[in-house]
Amino acid sequence: MELCRLTAAEALARMNAGDLTSRDYVQACLDRIAEREETVQAWAFLDPDLALRQADAADARRAAGTAGPLNGIPVGIKDIIDTADQPTENGSKLCAGRRPEADATLVRLLREAGAVIMGKCVTTEFALSAPGKTRNPHDPECTPGGSSSGSAASVGDYMVPLAIGSQTGGSMLRPASFNGVYGMKPTFGTISRAGMSPLSRRLDHPGIFARSPEDLALAAGVLMARDPGDRDMRGHARLGEADPLTVPPRLAFVRGPVWRKGEPDMQRAIEAFARTHGEVITERELPPVFETAAETQGVIMNGAVGQSLGPYYERDRDGLDPITAERVERGQGVTARAYLEAIELAEDMQDALAEFFKDFDAVVTPAAAGQAPRDLRRMGDAAFNGYWTLMGAPAVSIPLLKGDDGLPIGVQVVCPWGEDARLLRVCRWIADQAGEWR
Amino acid sequence: MELCRLTAAEALARMNAGDLTSRDYVQACLDRIAEREETVQAWAFLDPDLALRQADAADARRAAGTAGPLNGIPVGIKDIIDTADQPTENGSKLCAGRRPEADATLVRLLREAGAVIMGKCVTTEFALSAPGKTRNPHDPECTPGGSSSGSAASVGDYMVPLAIGSQTGGSMLRPASFNGVYGMKPTFGTISRAGMSPLSRRLDHPGIFARSPEDLALAAGVLMARDPGDRDMRGHARLGEADPLTVPPRLAFVRGPVWRKGEPDMQRAIEAFARTHGEVITERELPPVFETAAETQGVIMNGAVGQSLGPYYERDRDGLDPITAERVERGQGVTARAYLEAIELAEDMQDALAEFFKDFDAVVTPAAAGQAPRDLRRMGDAAFNGYWTLMGAPAVSIPLLKGDDGLPIGVQVVCPWGEDARLLRVCRWIADQAGEWR
Repeated sequence: MELCRLTAAEALARMNAGDLTSRDYVQACLDRIAEREETVQAWAFLDPDLALRQADAADARRAAGTAGPLNGIPVGIKDIIDTADQPTENGSKLCAGRRPEADATLVRLLREAGAVIMGKCVTTEFALSAPGKTRNPHDPECTPGGSSSGSAASVGDYMVPLAIGSQTGGSMLRPASFNGVYGMKPTFGTISRAGMSPLSRRLDHPGIFARSPEDLALAAGVLMARDPGDRDMRGHARLGEADPLTVPPRLAFVRGPVWRKGEPDMQRAIEAFARTHGEVITERELPPVFETAAETQGVIMNGAVGQSLGPYYERDRDGLDPITAERVERGQGVTARAYLEAIELAEDMQDALAEFFKDFDAVVTPAAAGQAPRDLRRMGDAAFNGYWTLMGAPAVSIPLLKGDDGLPIGVQVVCPWGEDARLLRVCRWIADQAGEWR
Repeated sequence: MELCRLTAAEALARMNAGDLTSRDYVQACLDRIAEREETVQAWAFLDPDLALRQADAADARRAAGTAGPLNGIPVGIKDIIDTADQPTENGSKLCAGRRPEADATLVRLLREAGAVIMGKCVTTEFALSAPGKTRNPHDPECTPGGSSSGSAASVGDYMVPLAIGSQTGGSMLRPASFNGVYGMKPTFGTISRAGMSPLSRRLDHPGIFARSPEDLALAAGVLMARDPGDRDMRGHARLGEADPLTVPPRLAFVRGPVWRKGEPDMQRAIEAFARTHGEVITERELPPVFETAAETQGVIMNGAVGQSLGPYYERDRDGLDPITAERVERGQGVTARAYLEAIELAEDMQDALAEFFKDFDAVVTPAAAGQAPRDLRRMGDAAFNGYWTLMGAPAVSIPLLKGDDGLPIGVQVVCPWGEDARLLRVCRWIADQAGEWR
């Protein structure tokens, strides 16, 4: 097996056994990038020497017995997240050449855990819908999805075992689905957004791409840490490890309020999956309050975008992609009344969801409308993710299904608020039962 | 001393000693109301028989040894707070004859503590600025202030020892100032608003009127209880009792960003007060971020009013006082962007205030622009209270000063978030040093 295909946990095991250095692992990833980047275009910034210097430092720490839990593991960082040693351009001409003075909190936590900050992954403009240059590694004529395009593609293409992205609507789980990787959005307020370009304080969730639930657990354990720099953080239970479940989980297959937006191949594939595992999966619909869930998320996101990107818009409207500028304009038309009504409605949904979960350990539901659209300007529909983002509950896309063209399709698994550890255990259980896409 | 002039603590001491029944105390209060109500007009609903039946039940409980901490004490309730046994009309024609099905949580807590729910106190229309019928007991040609007009006037006129009001801008501390009583707004999120007509989830604070800090502590100890019915509740420390301070508090005299809106007699009186107690009071200004504090509170309140009263407005605009209707219209013009920007700014102010309080135990600052205006349609300016409401910090108005016409003027005392017990101790200390207005 090529070194670049190792998961982080596998690489760490070999490093701990003295069979692998971080330099060799990082070099293998850099070789993969050198081979594939012209096709995939996942990176907004990459300095191989800087990465290798970090790898050497990690090897020295391991030799000195001071290796952290991610020592020597290369991690890609979505380019809306600040790095002090690398530019952070937010996918926007308006931020070209921008050099942050400090690392985002989550980058600092990764460095403290020993990770190699490999480079900056392509994002759509300000994490909205105007695409970057990245292509889908499974078929370069297809979109990688967005907004965390480069983060998902780089993990899907074996360039790095881990990458950090973010989700306000469907920017983690949809690209995870399109790129055939695991994508996790932990519970709202458990990973700091300090140093990350904001869209909506109510909705922005940092997240993790990986190629196994164990790697998600490894990174989440490092990243889920309280930070006074983010005013919206919540307490959370210690993540623990993704131990196997001792009894099968009770799963609800939920088509959800936007089912009609799904492609027929996706619908057939997930229905077949639910039927095949009928001994643990019950079909169940969400309570009626969820009927307007997608629209409710849209009002909150748009209203917040009017605020968060308003200053860029005013400084240089023409410097924004028209897709972004129009989104800001739409957001600036949202009234405080509509915003506050949406917030209340979302809380009604959260209460109803807590009630719904009394009968289930987790929900399984589509992670995307279908396989990646064969169109580099269309990023795919975030509708299957947005209302779950609104719930703040932890969610993972597992690469389980295939579309008609043989491209990957994810299954979204959602657990109750705060049940991040259980979610990872459920994901491991499902992956073992169902077999992963790859 | 007339019985109706007893504070709640004094009455309880006599009841515990067997020297007073709740029936006699409540009857004395009813007699005072009968004598004065034609002039003061504090009550939206009062049923003497219902009050006396509750008093008899309280006396029976005391005899049975099951008296709670407010057993037999009559309490007035602002008429935006639901009572199952009495109408709740929100000061609005649109709610004429409305009979709630259940008590508000705070009413339930009062009943569980043994209190006699004396009646419903006049409120401005939906707790905004359209006045009710109440007059100032110290001069019936003057406004009692609002929106908690009847609650403040009934306590100021010895009709009840305690009454419940609420503050979104300046609806507790300003009428407390005008009516010569103590008014307390505990820390945000410590008293449930479930069953109270909302204006702004971000700003609405229930509060307590009383004639001593000890009575405030007595009621606050009953009312500050977590309730799942209010989604914005915060944890808080046990209130404890208003023990005397063992060392003098360090006080900051703050003129604040709206000082220029103050009347000259108020300004002179509070400056003289600060000078007189110069050994413990330091003059200090708030950090620059507070310059727009009053406007920031206005944006949040108005934006929220557009939402909270929008449905009434749409159902029957002409049934609203034009003052209310225009406020709703103004609120509906607030954008989500402006609202969210104001929320961020408010949090910057909260951080700056926490820093400011490192040097002080409490702030003393005006509770109102001056004595009660001699105009029953003008409720006075809430500017001296609104930005403190925005801070969510606990605040009390102490009846300490006099205006040029001999009418009462309060001094507002503010402690850091969550320091409600300390605030009451500081108030007792100041009242002892300075002597109360009456």
